[in-house]
Amino acid sequence: MVFKKVTLIGTSPESFDAAADDAIDRAEETLENVKWVEVEEFGVELARAADREYQAEVTVAFELEE
Amino acid sequence: MVFKKVTLIGTSPESFDAAADDAIDRAEETLENVKWVEVEEFGVELARAADREYQAEVTVAFELEE
Amino acid sequence: MVFKKVTLIGTSPESFDAAADDAIDRAEETLENVKWVEVEEFGVELARAADREYQAEVTVAFELEE
Amino acid sequence: MVFKKVTLIGTSPESFDAAADDAIDRAEETLENVKWVEVEEFGVELARAADREYQAEVTVAFELEE
Amino acid sequence: MVFKKVTLIGTSPESFDAAADDAIDRAEETLENVKWVEVEEFGVELARAADREYQAEVTVAFELEE
Amino acid sequence: MVFKKVTLIGTSPESFDAAADDAIDRAEETLENVKWVEVEEFGVELARAADREYQAEVTVAFELEE
Amino acid sequence: MVFKKVTLIGTSPESFDAAADDAIDRAEETLENVKWVEVEEFGVELARAADREYQAEVTVAFELEE
Amino acid sequence: MVFKKVTLIGTSPESFDAAADDAIDRAEETLENVKWVEVEEFGVELARAADREYQAEVTVAFELEE
Amino acid sequence: MVFKKVTLIGTSPESFDAAADDAIDRAEETLENVKWVEVEEFGVELARAADREYQAEVTVAFELEE
Amino acid sequence: MVFKKVTLIGTSPESFDAAADDAIDRAEETLENVKWVEVEEFGVELARAADREYQAEVTVAFELEE
Amino acid sequence: MVFKKVTLIGTSPESFDAAADDAIDRAEETLENVKWVEVEEFGVELARAADREYQAEVTVAFELEE
Amino acid sequence: MVFKKVTLIGTSPESFDAAADDAIDRAEETLENVKWVEVEEFGVELARAADREYQAEVTVAFELEE
Repeated sequence: MVFKKVTLIGTSPESFDAAADDAIDRAEETLENVKWVEVEEFGVELARAADREYQAEVTVAFELEE
Repeated sequence: MVFKKVTLIGTSPESFDAAADDAIDRAEETLENVKWVEVEEFGVELARAADREYQAEVTVAFELEE
Repeated sequence: MVFKKVTLIGTSPESFDAAADDAIDRAEETLENVKWVEVEEFGVELARAADREYQAEVTVAFELEE
Repeated sequence: MVFKKVTLIGTSPESFDAAADDAIDRAEETLENVKWVEVEEFGVELARAADREYQAEVTVAFELEE
Repeated sequence: MVFKKVTLIGTSPESFDAAADDAIDRAEETLENVKWVEVEEFGVELARAADREYQAEVTVAFELEE
Repeated sequence: MVFKKVTLIGTSPESFDAAADDAIDRAEETLENVKWVEVEEFGVELARAADREYQAEVTVAFELEE
Repeated sequence: MVFKKVTLIGTSPESFDAAADDAIDRAEETLENVKWVEVEEFGVELARAADREYQAEVTVAFELEE
Repeated sequence: MVFKKVTLIGTSPESFDAAADDAIDRAEETLENVKWVEVEEFGVELARAADREYQAEVTVAFELEE
Repeated sequence: MVFKKVTLIGTSPESFDAAADDAIDRAEETLENVKWVEVEEFGVELARAADREYQAEVTVAFELEE
Repeated sequence: MVFKKVTLIGTSPESFDAAADDAIDRAEETLENVKWVEVEEFGVELARAADREYQAEVTVAFELEE
Repeated sequence: MVFKKVTLIGTSPESFDAAADDAIDRAEETLENVKWVEVEEFGVELARAADREYQAEVTVAFELEE
Repeated sequence: MVFKKVTLIGTSPESFDAAADDAIDRAEETLENVKWVEVEEFGVELARAADREYQAEVTVAFELEE
């Protein structure tokens, strides 16, 4: 059994939780067997966004198929 | 005055805030004089849980009785 | 173009998100051209507060005027 | 569901694996519901031991009973 | 010459060495020109496995073809 | 031979050395076989204390009885 | 909006800047919407190279298409 | 309630404690409502000083007025 | 003698060296007695800039007047 | 009593344990009074070696003679 | 101008300051042109010593002769 | 095969690259079989130097003779 980890950054106009969910949603759409997620960093983008854009950088671990 | 620190991981199906509160609730049930809490890490468990299980690892500092 | 970073700690009786927003609100009141924010640490104060006081230490980056 | 983490250092005259197992064995003798272990650090003691003493500092996570 | 790094977690019922080899075996099956590997973390899973499952999180560096 | 580590925070109105000694004194009163101590962090509390309260967060390692 | 991060190591016989540019060039050839780059580490390889080979390990963030 | 943190380096020909106090003295002369201090690093300067100059880099947290 | 540290991010279309110099130039225009600088991080902005914008986050230490 | 620390990297075609022992063997051949060893990092070299070369970077502490 | 850094651990039955001074004294006896010292870690040895042995691990920087 | 690592700080009035090269030049003059170099930190000295003195702290790895 081997797992792989990839790093995604989700965004949300609402909250850090929603930003993390955004990244996890994306991971689950494109990867099979997502097992766990580690939050690496939270941030807020103010320059590019009209309002505050919450960001969550997460590492997503999924099991590779044999 | 001496403080001790212990490490707990709270869980919640709802949010990181609720996961942290879960750990703090437990600390306050079993420890006297809890003074402050530091968040060490947030994560999400997907393998074991039917849905997303938000996790908050926290360090709880409490004052020891003399 | 030069940016400066300052470190603020916002507080809230409600949540980590609200604590981070508290610090960002303060930054935007007193600084021009706030561009992005990095969360350094979350904590909860229990000794000083009647109830739980959520805290968010953030680094705020803003562009200096030429 | 709340987990607690404790830090143990196992020792072995043989190997790092055996030193980690030594700590996990001890954890399982005295704690219920040990769930996972993280290796914090490996070292070797030469001063106190007749021969090399391999050491493994590990963090042991176990589920607290409700 | 450009290298890329990916993060894998190998597992073994035997030892940390075998867990690292498990991840490297997998990398060599699916990637050309694997050059070096850095161990990021060792752990042991006890909840999911019947017995101890040793885990090695490694970063694998391989040379990209031009 | 297995060691356990616990985290204490000693305090003193005098100095960082005295704050560390405060934590070690407490450890030696309540634990057998304390072997070594690592300083994790020094700080000074000014809000709660009439004067400066020096603080030393230390990790105390002691040998568990067989 | 979700970003992904990948880790590349560029090389150059000239300088750290050129090594970083080497990695960014490669990223822009193969990835759409590269947004920012963080330098993780600089090094110099002397064993494998006839002369000094400057290396820059960088993390490249790009926006995923929806 | 919002706190701000600033970084100061105090110096002393005597000791690390005195160097930290030097920085805290300065903070209290120029800032209102200093609440706590974290020691970031201790060092000793030998080149510039006739004798040993002890240095303490500290982060000073103070409450901003509303 | 007390020093203060502030964090600036310089930018340049040319190189990391020029980005660091940009921040130091700014520091020397607005601060007296700048003594030393520590590089905290290098990065490259690609989204906001027409071409690559090299960035250097630096900590600038200067001596406070008595 | 003063100790000095040096950093060595041992190698082995067999295992991480053997790589660490390789470094410790070398330290004991050339240094008197080696007291303890800390493992800094494990890695595997694949480019230079015919087969996997396990590497252990260790810090070796020895007591200096008076 | 090139500097070299070496790591020493000084000891004292009295205090962390004295332990750091012990290491610096030793460095100055055997090295020319010692310029600055960084404290890496403080600890206390209780097992080997009759009483508390304060320890200071320091990095000593000295200028190499041309 | 055993490698040793030493830490040097090179300096240059020109650039970070030249400061790193300064340290590597020195290493190659006095050490056989230098294999690779890791950059630990970049800084700029302004107090001691007439103009900016760029500094590169590097770790140099070389193979020990058998």
